[in-house]
Amino acid sequence: MPLDEQSLPYIRSISPYQPGKPITQLARDLGLPVDRIVKLASNENPLGMSPKAQAAVGVAIAGLSRYPDDFALKQALAERSGLGMERIVLGNGSNDVLDLVARVFLAPGRSAIFAQYAFAVYPLATISTGGEPIAVAASDYGHDLEAMLAAIRPNTRLIWIANPNNPTGTFLPYAQLKTFLQAVPSNIVVVLDEAYNEYLPPAERVDTTAWLARHGNLVITRTFSKIYGLAGLRIGYALCSAEIADLMNRVRQPFNCNNLALAAAVAALDDHEFVARSYALNRAGMEQIIAGLKRLACRHIPSHGNFLTFYVPEAAAVNQKLLSNGVIVRPIAAYGMPDWLRVTIGTESENSRFLEALEVSL
Amino acid sequence: MPLDEQSLPYIRSISPYQPGKPITQLARDLGLPVDRIVKLASNENPLGMSPKAQAAVGVAIAGLSRYPDDFALKQALAERSGLGMERIVLGNGSNDVLDLVARVFLAPGRSAIFAQYAFAVYPLATISTGGEPIAVAASDYGHDLEAMLAAIRPNTRLIWIANPNNPTGTFLPYAQLKTFLQAVPSNIVVVLDEAYNEYLPPAERVDTTAWLARHGNLVITRTFSKIYGLAGLRIGYALCSAEIADLMNRVRQPFNCNNLALAAAVAALDDHEFVARSYALNRAGMEQIIAGLKRLACRHIPSHGNFLTFYVPEAAAVNQKLLSNGVIVRPIAAYGMPDWLRVTIGTESENSRFLEALEVSL
Repeated sequence: MPLDEQSLPYIRSISPYQPGKPITQLARDLGLPVDRIVKLASNENPLGMSPKAQAAVGVAIAGLSRYPDDFALKQALAERSGLGMERIVLGNGSNDVLDLVARVFLAPGRSAIFAQYAFAVYPLATISTGGEPIAVAASDYGHDLEAMLAAIRPNTRLIWIANPNNPTGTFLPYAQLKTFLQAVPSNIVVVLDEAYNEYLPPAERVDTTAWLARHGNLVITRTFSKIYGLAGLRIGYALCSAEIADLMNRVRQPFNCNNLALAAAVAALDDHEFVARSYALNRAGMEQIIAGLKRLACRHIPSHGNFLTFYVPEAAAVNQKLLSNGVIVRPIAAYGMPDWLRVTIGTESENSRFLEALEVSL
Repeated sequence: MPLDEQSLPYIRSISPYQPGKPITQLARDLGLPVDRIVKLASNENPLGMSPKAQAAVGVAIAGLSRYPDDFALKQALAERSGLGMERIVLGNGSNDVLDLVARVFLAPGRSAIFAQYAFAVYPLATISTGGEPIAVAASDYGHDLEAMLAAIRPNTRLIWIANPNNPTGTFLPYAQLKTFLQAVPSNIVVVLDEAYNEYLPPAERVDTTAWLARHGNLVITRTFSKIYGLAGLRIGYALCSAEIADLMNRVRQPFNCNNLALAAAVAALDDHEFVARSYALNRAGMEQIIAGLKRLACRHIPSHGNFLTFYVPEAAAVNQKLLSNGVIVRPIAAYGMPDWLRVTIGTESENSRFLEALEVSL
């Protein structure tokens, strides 16, 4: 029997995640100079990272030959959240903590539920354990919580929720989420992925960590890849019960987070000014792009993140034209949305470049 | 049923890896100033990292808000190894690639073989998939390849080999390894972990990547955490067939390697002068420590890595005394070697500090 038939059938069935095209790749593909390319494809922070975090990285470089020590970041997150350090699990990006929780609770013969159009890592993390992925039809491109409740089977062990959701930007009001949590049997883990939480207007935001006291089955995940601008460094975390954290830590690679990410995250957490500036830039850019799309008669899904998903027939062809103009956005055909593109909110000039390129690409 | 009983029983059974004590932790524990502490516990490079790699990190800092792009490192490794890029899998440290290969081939009902006293991640990676770990009794603290062959069961899918081995430093001559590879059924994956490869004298070293042409079931893993001094950045890789690489990439988190590690590794690969300096320092330090241990009548296991494992009755008590003197070495009771300590070869002055502290701790 050939060797690859000895691999696990569910691993063979995985279609790998398709990342946004890196700037350097487009430069290689089309022979374009790097500085002529605008990338609005991966929901990255157009302001880069906090200058304080950058300074912390500069200091931490001296210790790179040492294996990482995650104490300081856990301590900072414990202080910030009011939870004990034993309830915090650090990840190599929040992708890593999503993977860890899947590996603790999922296996062949168990199932996990997520919404149609929800983040691609949920089915990937589920399938990689041999668990069965159950996609529940979306309502208005967002989570249909009642249908998700109704989809629970005796072998369901995990439910994935993204709030706000990527790639559609939809948002579930907290009251609905609370009702949902009360209805989910306590032996099913609910992962609440809040990667885009910091882009919500303060008035809309609720501190969901307070819910952990009542819901031992809740796992909240957050990331430093979005508003904190540390996507390239890889750092995220989960907040949950000490019991679940202990289980996740058993599967976690002992040095899953690198030293510079740990140092940068501690500094980034404290740079409120940078977060506020990033938030304000996102609000302004969102309005700029919405106005531009209106002018071009492109409808969009109202978004609560740092990106916007808009409707454009023949999206693949339009995307090719955008690329040849040096503008990278994200096709989301793999999400079952072949007539939509997702654009990350950039700086004012990046947004303008995108809108100009879109106008000539339609 | 309580929630943690919903977790997978094999995950609950894992005893997490015990890392070497970080310098900052000892400083916190004992109130010692950081600059009075010598850490020789984790086989790190006492020279730090390549200045070229450090410069590359400085440049790459500008791009940290972007998700990582692994093209340049894969290209550099392809050039270096003469293998196509499709045969290279990058990991967040080599721990990550070990984990990936386990997840591709192991699951409940399948078993994996490794040697007693071999690297702790082999049983951890095996158990975390639900696979059954089979530890084969060591011969002279190293791999007994004949016994490992004899241990193969119908459900065996993977064999872990470390060469040189950590924590004992033993080395398998290449002729033995070749005979072993020829005897292993081709439907069983053999992982050859060469984390310490670059510490072998050039005359002893053979380019095992040439074996990949004949052995489609061979996976060679290497790391930048040891002689390249990038432990804190997390970067390692696997070389194997395109088929196995494709399967590993299906489980791999899309952004498992961070931007700075990728940039540093490309630069580090080219800094032959730094590698040569690190190699020479290790040779000299090894002789220094062997001579010191002889003076103290401590016997050791001959080592082919950047560390030495020596016999000391009441090792736990001696370790405590070393710690209180500000010297961190590695107790290896968890490896079933409660009367041994492992010391990493440091700089000349670190080695002296260790030997002086050991003398007063015995």
